[in-house]
Amino acid sequence: MNYLDALIKKRKKFLGPNLPTFYDVPVHLVKGKDVWVWDKDGKKYLDCYNNVPHVGHCHPKVVEAITKQASTLNTHTRYLHEGIINYIDELSKTFVHDLTTAIMTCTGSEANDIALRIAHSITKSHGIISTNHTYHGNTALVSQLSDTNPSESFSSKFFKRVPAPDSYRMQSVSNLKEYSNKFSLEIEKKILEFKDQGIGFAGIIICPFFANEGFPNLPYGWLKPAEKMIKKYNGVIIADEVQPGFGRLGKKMWSHEIIGLEPDIVTIGKPMANGHPVGAVITNYDSMAEFRNNYRYFNTFGGNPVSCAASLSVLTILKEEKLLENAHTVGSYALNGLRELSKVHKIIGDVRGSGLFFGIELVKEKENKTPAKEITTKIVNNMKDEGILLSKLGINYNTLKIRPPMTFTKSNADFLLEKLDKVLKKNSI
Amino acid sequence: MNYLDALIKKRKKFLGPNLPTFYDVPVHLVKGKDVWVWDKDGKKYLDCYNNVPHVGHCHPKVVEAITKQASTLNTHTRYLHEGIINYIDELSKTFVHDLTTAIMTCTGSEANDIALRIAHSITKSHGIISTNHTYHGNTALVSQLSDTNPSESFSSKFFKRVPAPDSYRMQSVSNLKEYSNKFSLEIEKKILEFKDQGIGFAGIIICPFFANEGFPNLPYGWLKPAEKMIKKYNGVIIADEVQPGFGRLGKKMWSHEIIGLEPDIVTIGKPMANGHPVGAVITNYDSMAEFRNNYRYFNTFGGNPVSCAASLSVLTILKEEKLLENAHTVGSYALNGLRELSKVHKIIGDVRGSGLFFGIELVKEKENKTPAKEITTKIVNNMKDEGILLSKLGINYNTLKIRPPMTFTKSNADFLLEKLDKVLKKNSI
Repeated sequence: MNYLDALIKKRKKFLGPNLPTFYDVPVHLVKGKDVWVWDKDGKKYLDCYNNVPHVGHCHPKVVEAITKQASTLNTHTRYLHEGIINYIDELSKTFVHDLTTAIMTCTGSEANDIALRIAHSITKSHGIISTNHTYHGNTALVSQLSDTNPSESFSSKFFKRVPAPDSYRMQSVSNLKEYSNKFSLEIEKKILEFKDQGIGFAGIIICPFFANEGFPNLPYGWLKPAEKMIKKYNGVIIADEVQPGFGRLGKKMWSHEIIGLEPDIVTIGKPMANGHPVGAVITNYDSMAEFRNNYRYFNTFGGNPVSCAASLSVLTILKEEKLLENAHTVGSYALNGLRELSKVHKIIGDVRGSGLFFGIELVKEKENKTPAKEITTKIVNNMKDEGILLSKLGINYNTLKIRPPMTFTKSNADFLLEKLDKVLKKNSI
Repeated sequence: MNYLDALIKKRKKFLGPNLPTFYDVPVHLVKGKDVWVWDKDGKKYLDCYNNVPHVGHCHPKVVEAITKQASTLNTHTRYLHEGIINYIDELSKTFVHDLTTAIMTCTGSEANDIALRIAHSITKSHGIISTNHTYHGNTALVSQLSDTNPSESFSSKFFKRVPAPDSYRMQSVSNLKEYSNKFSLEIEKKILEFKDQGIGFAGIIICPFFANEGFPNLPYGWLKPAEKMIKKYNGVIIADEVQPGFGRLGKKMWSHEIIGLEPDIVTIGKPMANGHPVGAVITNYDSMAEFRNNYRYFNTFGGNPVSCAASLSVLTILKEEKLLENAHTVGSYALNGLRELSKVHKIIGDVRGSGLFFGIELVKEKENKTPAKEITTKIVNNMKDEGILLSKLGINYNTLKIRPPMTFTKSNADFLLEKLDKVLKKNSI
């Protein structure tokens, strides 16, 4: 048995079966630096996928912040410590709405799990709406927000889903404005169902970029009719910024600003501390007070001084290295490059994205927009062989998902585009 | 406004109201080393409370492990990495039962949240039994295991509680054996209620040391009738080792070994990586397979290489520094010291504990065992003024909870006993 097979066998023994890895032949990573990662054999890959190492793999300033605080003190929030207070002070300054009070957790899942309970505390109702094919985390409660996970569980009846927008395949509508109104009416339908069932309406949780659903191309204001509808029924709006937040989309810090949505609650996670386990839920003071009156919540690790130091270092680096501007500049450059490729490669049905979160939707033929699901998988694997890590997503799993660290350069984009051109040629239809 | 008041005000603004701190005047910690912590004014405290810095505050080998791995690579388990596999390999060797396959999470709460779903996957039933006054974490699901948290939430009907044992106040029984049988019959009553309601019985989650309920003094085998009862109805036994695990009780690694309980699932957290956010749920291969077939579970940060390196360093240090033996030796020494104090101080109703988890139950008068709740609170605060951090717990909040880092020495114990003697004299009744 070769080395990789032995490792996979051992992984199955200790981690259990049915635990997927990326790629047909999984990658065994041993080293990372900035936008690059290396496997066991010394092969170097351009990381065009991982958003968790937000400011680059193993950023020395994040490591330094962690080391320094871990050497000094690591404890919990039942003692006073300035770390958490200073961090939330800085974080709250990045929001344009009244989002000033936070609970720090260890994961985005924990943050969303709290967000739903804040919505319940405010409304005294349980009914939660999400979009289909979304993902908001892995706790028993929040895993039910997704219809891509088996949803039969402890409290399924409190969850309903509306179809996420698909800007490339708008159905039975003639324009984005009409599509936007239709989306708000779908929400109303579910609200009324909840009311009929005596469950009541607590709110909606939404990724304002619809990251898992293939990040449709939607203009500023597209979610306004939905926002009005939710407010008409006194629901709470939770913006899940775990994927698109922290400047990922370029220029602005948060995706809800970009689409023009006013959330009552924001949740964050993955990129928050460059890979150190941390998340947070942020809301206004009164909503937080309502939650704290209803639920006795304490998180042993949440908001510990090390997590706060790591998180603060990421905010500092984003500013110091002007990474929001970089995401916009390099992202636009890469998107233009993809548009050029789409003129040559018939398989590219749509090019879209924002900042350093972009991709192409692959179709068998453009007229019917038939998803090229199998070819997409093949391309993802071929790109890996060429030394580029990326993935696929979307309702039909036919959209290439490109989401590199925020330090991605134009030169990195050129390398990506060159390899993509080569692989698309190889898989031309 | 003085410095501390200003900090408390700022904390309320950014963290919300109703967020308790320890002690009447909260402690503002800035530094920790081994069993000692320092506040902002340079005052030094002997930490007799914190179990999270298991091998001592800021242990240099844990910091080194974190720094080294955070500088090399930090990614997730959809790539292959030896860190997680080697850690679970080492961890599984510490169990005497068939507990070989694990999911690594970021908190003990996440581990328990999964454990309940494993129980559901195996039994296809939802009914979960726990003990009253217990605590198993903060997710929407597991927070309902506790009746000390407001329990009205998304899925309350699936949870029932039985009274936890109280060895000091056994009611309507003449001996521990009879008490043990009575406990198993309480469980059967709840199982039958679940069955009558059509909910079915999934299992029980239990801290084998009943840490939050005042760690009653129970002999090996005490839980055997309960174990048999649960197995009679095909329920799953989840041992929550988050507090008493990792050698805390002395000599043995796990509290379920000490009381003689055979769990199907074990959950761990707090001390696992000395404060770095990590937890895990461990079960046998087939149960894990069942869960993985039912739930698509992925945890972005769970099992990342840095968390695994930190966790592995704790296992290594426990062995290298012989801390399980130390917990037994120093714990027994301290317990004897407390017994000596109980001869002098009438307020001490009971002395109990195991390893480095021990305490005294304080009563107004010994005959009726009337809990001395207010005095206990006062003693905790007086001890803080004397430079000793400890806390209180138990069903009546009248038990001093002493649970220092595992590097606690006899000299530390002498210091604790000396100060406790002084404070008890001051609060004599």
